Amino acid sequence: MRPSGRQLDEMREVSIETNVTKHAEGSCLIKMGDTHVLCTATLEDRVPPFIKGSGLGWVTAEYGMLPRSTSSRMRREAAAGKQGGRTVEIQRLIGRSLRAGVDRVALGERQITVDCDVIQADGGTRCASITGGWVALRLAVNKLLKAGDIVSDPLLDPVAAISCGIYAGQPVLDLDYPEDSEAGVDGNFIMLGKKTLIEVQMSAEGSVFSRDQMNQLMDLAEKGVTELAAAQLAATA
Amino acid sequence: MRPSGRQLDEMREVSIETNVTKHAEGSCLIKMGDTHVLCTATLEDRVPPFIKGSGLGWVTAEYGMLPRSTSSRMRREAAAGKQGGRTVEIQRLIGRSLRAGVDRVALGERQITVDCDVIQADGGTRCASITGGWVALRLAVNKLLKAGDIVSDPLLDPVAAISCGIYAGQPVLDLDYPEDSEAGVDGNFIMLGKKTLIEVQMSAEGSVFSRDQMNQLMDLAEKGVTELAAAQLAATA
Amino acid sequence: MRPSGRQLDEMREVSIETNVTKHAEGSCLIKMGDTHVLCTATLEDRVPPFIKGSGLGWVTAEYGMLPRSTSSRMRREAAAGKQGGRTVEIQRLIGRSLRAGVDRVALGERQITVDCDVIQADGGTRCASITGGWVALRLAVNKLLKAGDIVSDPLLDPVAAISCGIYAGQPVLDLDYPEDSEAGVDGNFIMLGKKTLIEVQMSAEGSVFSRDQMNQLMDLAEKGVTELAAAQLAATA
Amino acid sequence: MRPSGRQLDEMREVSIETNVTKHAEGSCLIKMGDTHVLCTATLEDRVPPFIKGSGLGWVTAEYGMLPRSTSSRMRREAAAGKQGGRTVEIQRLIGRSLRAGVDRVALGERQITVDCDVIQADGGTRCASITGGWVALRLAVNKLLKAGDIVSDPLLDPVAAISCGIYAGQPVLDLDYPEDSEAGVDGNFIMLGKKTLIEVQMSAEGSVFSRDQMNQLMDLAEKGVTELAAAQLAATA
Amino acid sequence: MRPSGRQLDEMREVSIETNVTKHAEGSCLIKMGDTHVLCTATLEDRVPPFIKGSGLGWVTAEYGMLPRSTSSRMRREAAAGKQGGRTVEIQRLIGRSLRAGVDRVALGERQITVDCDVIQADGGTRCASITGGWVALRLAVNKLLKAGDIVSDPLLDPVAAISCGIYAGQPVLDLDYPEDSEAGVDGNFIMLGKKTLIEVQMSAEGSVFSRDQMNQLMDLAEKGVTELAAAQLAATA
Amino acid sequence: MRPSGRQLDEMREVSIETNVTKHAEGSCLIKMGDTHVLCTATLEDRVPPFIKGSGLGWVTAEYGMLPRSTSSRMRREAAAGKQGGRTVEIQRLIGRSLRAGVDRVALGERQITVDCDVIQADGGTRCASITGGWVALRLAVNKLLKAGDIVSDPLLDPVAAISCGIYAGQPVLDLDYPEDSEAGVDGNFIMLGKKTLIEVQMSAEGSVFSRDQMNQLMDLAEKGVTELAAAQLAATA
Repeated sequence: MRPSGRQLDEMREVSIETNVTKHAEGSCLIKMGDTHVLCTATLEDRVPPFIKGSGLGWVTAEYGMLPRSTSSRMRREAAAGKQGGRTVEIQRLIGRSLRAGVDRVALGERQITVDCDVIQADGGTRCASITGGWVALRLAVNKLLKAGDIVSDPLLDPVAAISCGIYAGQPVLDLDYPEDSEAGVDGNFIMLGKKTLIEVQMSAEGSVFSRDQMNQLMDLAEKGVTELAAAQLAATA
Repeated sequence: MRPSGRQLDEMREVSIETNVTKHAEGSCLIKMGDTHVLCTATLEDRVPPFIKGSGLGWVTAEYGMLPRSTSSRMRREAAAGKQGGRTVEIQRLIGRSLRAGVDRVALGERQITVDCDVIQADGGTRCASITGGWVALRLAVNKLLKAGDIVSDPLLDPVAAISCGIYAGQPVLDLDYPEDSEAGVDGNFIMLGKKTLIEVQMSAEGSVFSRDQMNQLMDLAEKGVTELAAAQLAATA
Repeated sequence: MRPSGRQLDEMREVSIETNVTKHAEGSCLIKMGDTHVLCTATLEDRVPPFIKGSGLGWVTAEYGMLPRSTSSRMRREAAAGKQGGRTVEIQRLIGRSLRAGVDRVALGERQITVDCDVIQADGGTRCASITGGWVALRLAVNKLLKAGDIVSDPLLDPVAAISCGIYAGQPVLDLDYPEDSEAGVDGNFIMLGKKTLIEVQMSAEGSVFSRDQMNQLMDLAEKGVTELAAAQLAATA
Repeated sequence: MRPSGRQLDEMREVSIETNVTKHAEGSCLIKMGDTHVLCTATLEDRVPPFIKGSGLGWVTAEYGMLPRSTSSRMRREAAAGKQGGRTVEIQRLIGRSLRAGVDRVALGERQITVDCDVIQADGGTRCASITGGWVALRLAVNKLLKAGDIVSDPLLDPVAAISCGIYAGQPVLDLDYPEDSEAGVDGNFIMLGKKTLIEVQMSAEGSVFSRDQMNQLMDLAEKGVTELAAAQLAATA
Repeated sequence: MRPSGRQLDEMREVSIETNVTKHAEGSCLIKMGDTHVLCTATLEDRVPPFIKGSGLGWVTAEYGMLPRSTSSRMRREAAAGKQGGRTVEIQRLIGRSLRAGVDRVALGERQITVDCDVIQADGGTRCASITGGWVALRLAVNKLLKAGDIVSDPLLDPVAAISCGIYAGQPVLDLDYPEDSEAGVDGNFIMLGKKTLIEVQMSAEGSVFSRDQMNQLMDLAEKGVTELAAAQLAATA
Repeated sequence: MRPSGRQLDEMREVSIETNVTKHAEGSCLIKMGDTHVLCTATLEDRVPPFIKGSGLGWVTAEYGMLPRSTSSRMRREAAAGKQGGRTVEIQRLIGRSLRAGVDRVALGERQITVDCDVIQADGGTRCASITGGWVALRLAVNKLLKAGDIVSDPLLDPVAAISCGIYAGQPVLDLDYPEDSEAGVDGNFIMLGKKTLIEVQMSAEGSVFSRDQMNQLMDLAEKGVTELAAAQLAATA
């Protein structure tokens, strides 16, 4: 029934290649099927003004899409002169989600910026960015630990994200673009690997939904996150 | 236990004053306690380019805060030269939520723009904007119906929104600013009056949350929306 | 002869409601007929860089119109990405006018920002902003005096503003929108309550004017300012 | 008493050199003492959208200062990314003033853009821009008349502008920069050559003023405009 | 003598992987040593307004660097709100260079946009962008030929670019970042495969240069371009 | 054969008038035929952050065109909200070229900003800006030497620039606008007076070029620079 022939609760193939760029303190190329996102983590000693002197660390994120990552070419945001509303919304979500998995006292007064750049898009780019972003973050934090710059690990459990939705009347896991553009309900679920919740966003797209449907999507999301967390741990082992 | 002395499941006092400005086709001043939002609906015959000729209508929204609606003065976004990320996120949410309650075929090829301007803020401005925005929309649509410009009513059921969160370890309904700034989990729930879901957003703010807690917040939200829908219908009767 | 039926030298009804918002140090809602402006005064300890260390205070103003304060909806300036020329001109005028009525030594090194936001427009919004802005300023200064933060009162006399113009060949006081859009000459007169002049702006709009006509408008303006100053003092008594 | 040694009612030396650039339809370099402004008039067949099809013409103006026209270098507005409030205010004034002296029916549906660029500034640049701008406009209109593109002359009388102010307690004509920066009251007077008024702007700068003083400044301004109109006519004869 | 141990006239290893993204009509990932650039070509039926109806085609280019393509993180241009001067200069150069190798009559009235996004930078990104950009262009044009949309091939000869410079007093081919940042003279040479010149840019960076040195750099560049053109043809065979 | 009747190796008449504005530390109006550029040099004690404390000086440049310096009116960049790509490219070139002729140690930790504003354009504005910019720079440096603020002269040899190109198949010196718009190859050559090279830019405009042609243009450029350097020295003697 799904355009890709996948089962309702079947995720796309996940691949996470680490250390793909020589400059960043942590990096990976995450592929969720045909959605490819390059994630890099940059370590800096400065923190934003509002926490200066607090002893707390900060994790923030930026998101972008290459102009031809999509089926028809998108205008370059740098040329348009500003980041669009969707971009801003997504990068705020990535930053907020990753911070929820960080012990900011243990990180100490430093900032890690996670850049997520979509090389090729086929639905689910924000979720792939969070999942891959955590891997880049993990690798950068490993450098701090190895160098003795921090003593206790500020990352307790992977942060992973997956989309689920109601497609053709059925709850499905990990929407690709053809499904996403037709789905009546669309949700993004961000959790720790142990399945406690960080952020839930569900949105009617043409049809409203019931609490029952919401619970079905939550069940699928828990399955997906469990698999993603395993892939994250394997990639950074 | 709550700073305001309210019960855990007690909303702030709601007041909706309609027709507060002489120019707009629909308008109201909604007060959720000390949160006051002026909502106006503007009717235009043109639609955005992407639906021109489709016969479908469009509902969109914009959101703003007066510089001194808040405890300390905020910089005016027009002076800053752009709308901030939070503003963009909120106005996209308002528009999406209101559209979910509109039969766009019945509306016909015309656009209604709902402006939500926060006169005084004390938490929950985006939810008040949606709830009040629907009232302004209802009044503007009534003009169309009365004038015979449209025949069947495109608004079936009120769209209402309420925030719930975990405050001091307890699930509470309708967070005010002192609660919102301390809450560990914060959620916005947008529903039709009959309690089917339009949008759910839950976010960990310092502490993650469980599915049980999520369900407790949903229960509170359903109670709140039922009361809000009654107030919306009373105001527009 | 006037669309509103007013006498040539008759102002619209003035109403000034004070303390309309709980956050601002001073605030009022001024109504000149159907022109309604919300004015708030914000007190801050910092001053602009160019007077730092001078011991002098500063008063500045910002102006905005809600999108549907007007007959047809105006584009939100925050969305357009900049304040238009008219807005900039008006807010510079408001700030300059209010400063002319302030003893900046007595105020001491602090800044008061007066925000004037037009809720509903029917002509004369800049004059209403100045008149109402002074009331908000007066209330904020009263707080400073009451708290003992300043000793001598920096506000000697109300600053009030009124428009006059040549409408249908006759000099009239306090133009409303239907008059303003037809007037051949349009002037704004800003004075202290005792009628000394702060700013005079007269502009031909389609027809030039003589010194005689200029003097007739000045006479009307003096009458208007006298009445406005009385209303300002009554509202802040 | 004046820094320049001029009499109270003595203007700076005026020089108007015409046809100073080969591309513009009309141009002049106007010098009011050390204030030098290059004015060009550009003739275009298109008009702004709001008068398309009306048969009426349009005159508009833009104003700029070269970065080192002033005593210390100003930031280039193109580099700053926007025209400042003062620039916008001035160019709106120039356009409005010149339009007041144009019979827009006689001009026909075409636009003339007057650019005023300050090469060297020593006070009074906006007045010099209006006076010189009219000369450029006159020369461009002469081309239209000569070519038979229009039949009746849309320019009846020169538009000229002069500043006056209260300097060291005395009313003085044509403030230069040292006077302008010290003046307690500062006014700009724009008139037709026959002394009917187009625009009057008087502003308290540190001290308020009386109607008597206003009248003294008006007397000086009438003297100045008479001399300027003679210079304009001589330059374009 | 060179930091990399290369001979004076030795280029870095070149690799060109084609068809690396599923959406673009043509694409490649070009690697010049550690400089990696993703090039995509987008085919569109519309052309810029200034050639509409001329029957001529257009080729244009845009350039960007991922924030962490460099040793320390660069600010994202979309966030900064504009493309920097260097970016604009480079993308104008890429577009101009590629157009010089296109028969715009044979291309017909359509536009090809070449996007060059630097994934990892180690000097010479603009040259790699041109060389890789031509490959993406070639592949997109092949699609047009294969589909019969154009009949005669508008690309006659590869366009390739290489940098040369004076490093430690010696002329060297294909500067990497450590060389580039120390070079006294830096040049970019864009040629057709048969070595006729399209663009030459030589710049003193700290030391001026002689005509003799200029000729030595030209000799090296001809060697480099010959090798690059062979690689381009091999990749697109 | 040339539209102006000049010989192939004949420059336009050069005139350099110095000290044309009273505020700038150095200034000139350079005329290359009908191309007129006003150049001013501003001396400031501050330097850009990246060389603070280094003891080195800095020379930078900005470039602009008056709106009606060209045959048809150009949009004012300040009104457009940004400097165009061409402007940015040119001002970077001017600054880079002038710095190449400055001993930054001898200049000491101060900045000189050279503004080049095109009053009238007829081709070759960037070259005229560099040549005239050096004259303004020379005059400003002379002030420093005279005042004893610096001891040894940081300017060793004039920096001059000239364009050459292939017009109607022939190499010609100093292209004017009619030639420039038709030229198949266009080059800008920046040298010290003694003919060592600072920057060479050659660009195919419609036809590619050979090394032979490149050498012919270089020969012409050397002739031109020799004459320009003589004019620069004469003007500043």
